[in-house]
Amino acid sequence: MKYLRKINYLILAVLIGFSMTLSSCGGGEQGAKGDIGAPFGDESFKNIVDRRELNADDVLAAAKTYTPDNLSDEFVAMNSGGQAGNMPMYAVPSMRMMKYIPICARQPIAGYGYSMETMKMMEKGFIDGAELFWGDTHHPGYSETNGVYNGKWATVNDKANPRVYIINLQDWELVDVIPHPIFRSDHGGNFFTPNSEYIMEATQYPAPFDHKYYPLSQSNFEKYWRGGLTYWKFDNETGKVDTDNSFTFEFPPYTQDLSDAGKLASDGWGFTNSFCTEMYYGGMESGRPPFEAGCSSKDVDYLHVTNWKKAVELVANGMYEIVNGHKVITIDMAIKNDLFFLIPEPKSPHGVDVDPTGDYIVVAGKLDSHAWVYSFEKIMKAIDDRNFEGVDKYGIPIISLEDALHGSVEVGLGPLHNQYDDELGVIFTSIYVDSRITKWDYIKLEVLDYVPSHYNIGHLVSSHGDTQEPTGDYLIALNKLSIDRFNPVGPLHPQNHQLIDIKGPKMKIIYDLPIPMGEPHYTIMMKKGMFTPISKYDVGTDITTREKSKYYTDLGAEKVSNKGNTVKIFGTIKDGAVTPANIKVTQGQKVFIHLTNHGQAEVDHYVYEISSYDKMYRWRPGETATLEFVAEKSGMYPLLLDEMHHPGNRKLQGYLSVEFNADAESQRLLAFAARVQDDMMMQAFKPSSIELENMLDGEIEYLNHGCNACHRFGEEYNGPDLLMVDKRRNDEWLKSWITDTESHYGEADIEAMRQKYKLAMPNQNVSDEAADKIITFLKLETERVMSELK
Amino acid sequence: MKYLRKINYLILAVLIGFSMTLSSCGGGEQGAKGDIGAPFGDESFKNIVDRRELNADDVLAAAKTYTPDNLSDEFVAMNSGGQAGNMPMYAVPSMRMMKYIPICARQPIAGYGYSMETMKMMEKGFIDGAELFWGDTHHPGYSETNGVYNGKWATVNDKANPRVYIINLQDWELVDVIPHPIFRSDHGGNFFTPNSEYIMEATQYPAPFDHKYYPLSQSNFEKYWRGGLTYWKFDNETGKVDTDNSFTFEFPPYTQDLSDAGKLASDGWGFTNSFCTEMYYGGMESGRPPFEAGCSSKDVDYLHVTNWKKAVELVANGMYEIVNGHKVITIDMAIKNDLFFLIPEPKSPHGVDVDPTGDYIVVAGKLDSHAWVYSFEKIMKAIDDRNFEGVDKYGIPIISLEDALHGSVEVGLGPLHNQYDDELGVIFTSIYVDSRITKWDYIKLEVLDYVPSHYNIGHLVSSHGDTQEPTGDYLIALNKLSIDRFNPVGPLHPQNHQLIDIKGPKMKIIYDLPIPMGEPHYTIMMKKGMFTPISKYDVGTDITTREKSKYYTDLGAEKVSNKGNTVKIFGTIKDGAVTPANIKVTQGQKVFIHLTNHGQAEVDHYVYEISSYDKMYRWRPGETATLEFVAEKSGMYPLLLDEMHHPGNRKLQGYLSVEFNADAESQRLLAFAARVQDDMMMQAFKPSSIELENMLDGEIEYLNHGCNACHRFGEEYNGPDLLMVDKRRNDEWLKSWITDTESHYGEADIEAMRQKYKLAMPNQNVSDEAADKIITFLKLETERVMSELK
Repeated sequence: MKYLRKINYLILAVLIGFSMTLSSCGGGEQGAKGDIGAPFGDESFKNIVDRRELNADDVLAAAKTYTPDNLSDEFVAMNSGGQAGNMPMYAVPSMRMMKYIPICARQPIAGYGYSMETMKMMEKGFIDGAELFWGDTHHPGYSETNGVYNGKWATVNDKANPRVYIINLQDWELVDVIPHPIFRSDHGGNFFTPNSEYIMEATQYPAPFDHKYYPLSQSNFEKYWRGGLTYWKFDNETGKVDTDNSFTFEFPPYTQDLSDAGKLASDGWGFTNSFCTEMYYGGMESGRPPFEAGCSSKDVDYLHVTNWKKAVELVANGMYEIVNGHKVITIDMAIKNDLFFLIPEPKSPHGVDVDPTGDYIVVAGKLDSHAWVYSFEKIMKAIDDRNFEGVDKYGIPIISLEDALHGSVEVGLGPLHNQYDDELGVIFTSIYVDSRITKWDYIKLEVLDYVPSHYNIGHLVSSHGDTQEPTGDYLIALNKLSIDRFNPVGPLHPQNHQLIDIKGPKMKIIYDLPIPMGEPHYTIMMKKGMFTPISKYDVGTDITTREKSKYYTDLGAEKVSNKGNTVKIFGTIKDGAVTPANIKVTQGQKVFIHLTNHGQAEVDHYVYEISSYDKMYRWRPGETATLEFVAEKSGMYPLLLDEMHHPGNRKLQGYLSVEFNADAESQRLLAFAARVQDDMMMQAFKPSSIELENMLDGEIEYLNHGCNACHRFGEEYNGPDLLMVDKRRNDEWLKSWITDTESHYGEADIEAMRQKYKLAMPNQNVSDEAADKIITFLKLETERVMSELK
Repeated sequence: MKYLRKINYLILAVLIGFSMTLSSCGGGEQGAKGDIGAPFGDESFKNIVDRRELNADDVLAAAKTYTPDNLSDEFVAMNSGGQAGNMPMYAVPSMRMMKYIPICARQPIAGYGYSMETMKMMEKGFIDGAELFWGDTHHPGYSETNGVYNGKWATVNDKANPRVYIINLQDWELVDVIPHPIFRSDHGGNFFTPNSEYIMEATQYPAPFDHKYYPLSQSNFEKYWRGGLTYWKFDNETGKVDTDNSFTFEFPPYTQDLSDAGKLASDGWGFTNSFCTEMYYGGMESGRPPFEAGCSSKDVDYLHVTNWKKAVELVANGMYEIVNGHKVITIDMAIKNDLFFLIPEPKSPHGVDVDPTGDYIVVAGKLDSHAWVYSFEKIMKAIDDRNFEGVDKYGIPIISLEDALHGSVEVGLGPLHNQYDDELGVIFTSIYVDSRITKWDYIKLEVLDYVPSHYNIGHLVSSHGDTQEPTGDYLIALNKLSIDRFNPVGPLHPQNHQLIDIKGPKMKIIYDLPIPMGEPHYTIMMKKGMFTPISKYDVGTDITTREKSKYYTDLGAEKVSNKGNTVKIFGTIKDGAVTPANIKVTQGQKVFIHLTNHGQAEVDHYVYEISSYDKMYRWRPGETATLEFVAEKSGMYPLLLDEMHHPGNRKLQGYLSVEFNADAESQRLLAFAARVQDDMMMQAFKPSSIELENMLDGEIEYLNHGCNACHRFGEEYNGPDLLMVDKRRNDEWLKSWITDTESHYGEADIEAMRQKYKLAMPNQNVSDEAADKIITFLKLETERVMSELK
């Protein structure tokens, strides 16, 4: 059956014919501009439809999705952002973008990663203490109570850098991030259990849990590489993850994929796919097959079935091993306690989705044209009867397919993911090779309908379609690359989210939404009104903790505190003005600008910026936040307040005056050098092999002032070669250059060197005496090196 | 006149009545689900309109904007991103977002700032050599030939960190960035002259051109602070800015605002507003008025009129001063050569816009309800006649208002910006206090129409509305905060771009587009088909230079090169597979992964990721790019290739194996410490005051191994206090800890300290002999400090 939406039915002509009298209603002073049938001066409906070549389907779809300013949208959809490091949120059915929630990457428009407070939040997500400014977020989940969304929290996993993010649905901002202590990648997350007791996060590509290096070989892979499934203990009231009471099931290195939690009858159990029971790890450069082929040699993979409710009790009683501070249920422990079983599943599966009743589990096997339906009742019977067909290489009992399967249906080539309808038994499956969506009945095992999707569908989502109560209103096809669909704007294509009306028996595509930020993985939709968003914070709130900031400053209590080399400004924002307006510091001082936004109107958003400095942040109504920086550069810098809503859009508040300081200028130049010269910092830390007795006169002064950070004798390094420098410059000039460095800045040859080395020599506060000694050393070392050359 | 769009006219009932027979055309196997008038099983048009409470205007607007998949949009709009650091691009009239062009901030989804090549592009925009990862982009401009868009280049200015960005309209990617050598903020940019000879960039808030510190006072402000207008020489063929042949007009510190280039009759001239001829610089904390008030005490400000064509000739003949390497025409030079004039303009103006004929210049004065229209002919006459009313404080001749003005029109409270229609004389002005758009005639000086906009309008844009040939199709109102308009998702509101149909005599708002990324300033719209986008690059292209990369690697020519501590991988991507798939390095090695994407299909986009490492990038079809990093952490890291379009969506390529190296582990821990302990690096560079003769035994070894970077005697520093460490630990343990550090990792008390100081002590490769000396020093120094305490 071909999908015929482009045919202009007679019926459209009827509509257009009768609507020639339609016009708009904006006022009537002026006459028509020429269109027949446009008495109020606007283009007629007929003319619009003719001009734009719309057909009947287009007009119906337009009416279903166009949302004028007096209406609100029915659903809010929250998306995986993929490598964008944010989570796009749009409204359904108008498909208009409302927000990009910042998660893994800095986002200047929200200020995320630009204040001290939000940077600390980012640092919580650093892995092994190393900076990490990207992510690959995949599967969002909404928190649940009794198996339905409770409107409190959302979560998402970072696949590439395994982390769990928690978002508060009051302000749609991040409240927590938990880097995984033992995984190296994840995929089967994040899914809440029916009362949000736990969040599931399963590995994708296995790696050694201890994070150590092992030579890559099949035996090492099987011995040290592991997958796993973590149940993160979640607090539905605070949105916090209790890492101490969380635990991980150790899995074989089978390359796990998606997971889902049981519901109702199956509550207490978890289901996780795997797609490389072949335990293949690639290696084309050594003549081995590509990864996909290596992982597809067997006919089936294994569905992992875990009993988390029983595991919780046993872990509470001490059944775990500690790996990197984290509780792990080993495979042996799980086997011994009947916590972990395997069932054959279709080749290289992607989605595993428990139905709204909890009685069925549907698995779509990427390399099989069938979706397989498992019966939870049958699975339980096999376990109760201890009816296993054997054990795998790691000793895990395997339930036979025939003992677990309800049945299978041919749904199309490359089935991926499933979502449920409000009608019992009805399921929607994305089919990526055929580029379509199949609607079928997983109880009666028959196909009902299909609709072609754009290229190339991955996940799909129906309204509340992963809960116990799907609403059956909308389905969205999440397509990866929108080739030939929208106006071309260069090689980067947006993704395409296709909105589908599923209220009738036939699915109807009614909107194509390009999203140019992110990659589509999973999306979740929640009815408007199920969550209660706030529009401001109590005055003085640190939004990363949602508590009163200790840097809160009352109006009239603004102050500047100087202590040692640190300046702390406790300031306020009120009615578009920052107090204090002007800030004066000395170069090299550490500066903290703590500002409290006393605005409490919805419009009281302010971006405070220091021109030409790497400092800015956006203050929400009531927020207290901090700019933290070292005033490395001297000069006069405009301080701007961007007051988005104010007619005056006032900007300049005053100037950041940074008084010149020679020592700080030196440090700035050195720090600059450290950035442009990769290895320089390392060099400075290298254990030196200097031995006291062999030192030349002046050498200790030369070293003490760090000259060797930039100079060598006989080679160019981070600065000019010092060999024979005493022949090129006289002692007087050298001494002046060493002790009064800045006075030479601007001289043509010094500027030339500055350009060449991208670095000016800093003033190192060298005493006259030390400078003399250094000059002596320059001569002695030149002599020594020259004599060696002879 | 109230805007009546929400009234349901009888006419709508007529439409709905006649359209009850309308239905869709998707297929016919299944019967209707209950709706009368829906013979093909879909909801009827009447039911949709009833259910969604749409009125006649809504239906017309939906038909005007809904763009089904067989149609393309008519225009592509390019937006300022404000603090988002990107440029959002959407299509008109469907108002769907196509791309966010990365500019000032890193953007992981495009890979911008994540490859060596794109990071180098970002570094070109660093100011004074300091990192700068944000911007506040304001005014995009399209390149022109003969006063109309030529579809080649776009530009935008960064207001807060004065920089000019150039975008190529073939791939819609950045080709150049030029940080301003003397400004500290800009606003009046970026505007092309009619044949793209120059790009105009004017300051906003003045600052000293020499970037030096001067105590803030009125006399210093007037003496050292300066505004300016730069004409950047532009090459219409290469898209490059020729900085050597660019120059800046020195302006008084009047806080300049927007600019525009003359056209036709006025070609060769530039016009720049100013809004603080009061030369006020704030200072509320000293009891002075707020900035806005201080800048509004006078009744008029000055329009700055500059003759750039004549200036070009004079600069070519050596008429300039060099400031920080940049050519500056001083105020005195400009006066002497008749290059620079002032004209009074309405109080605190924002927009200055030359009309399509070049004969009129319209200025909207924020604090005046009138827009003022200047006649270029009159201005020229006054100059030719040397008819001036006097000079300002800096000696610049002032043309009197009556000698320059064509007339003024009361357009509403708070007029801001202007755009032109295809009908001669018709102009659209944004009115922010009244929140509306006024359509008026600037030649006949009469108001024609207005339409209310959402809260709070700033700029506006009409199709080709700033060129010599506006098309008169669409107008977009750029509103800053969409309170109460879209579904609420927390305190952060999107902006709202309202699309207005201007084809008829009455303006009609037909779409509200929320944009949650960026702040609206200016937008420009270009007809589809006027530019020729590419969808791929020649194999081996470095997209930042558009030239063949020297790291290009042919298929089959992949290799790994080891030299010293550096590993270079020359690899390829082809058909979803990276060669080499596995990479083995040693901890501490510097790694360059140069990959060439041999894919040439539109879908051949690949994101290559190193799990749990701060490294990823997105390769476009044909691109060669580099991941550059130090392999700081040992262990096994999955190497993933995200192949967005492929059914297999293959991911794992192999593993990055990083073999443990004790020295590198030490360096990693020290580098980590440097990040968590702000001052530590500085400390390491501080000139030490150690004098040889006073050194204790073992002190030089203690210093040489950097122990003092973390430890003090008698205080906690970056690590534990070493006072009396010899009483807490025996010599044997100390020596083992110093020389065989890693073997103690994992011990409970070591772990506890690691938690406390967020740092483990690194192995410093201390010899046995040196360790003994260090232990001796620990004892001697303890003794010394204790004796001082007595």
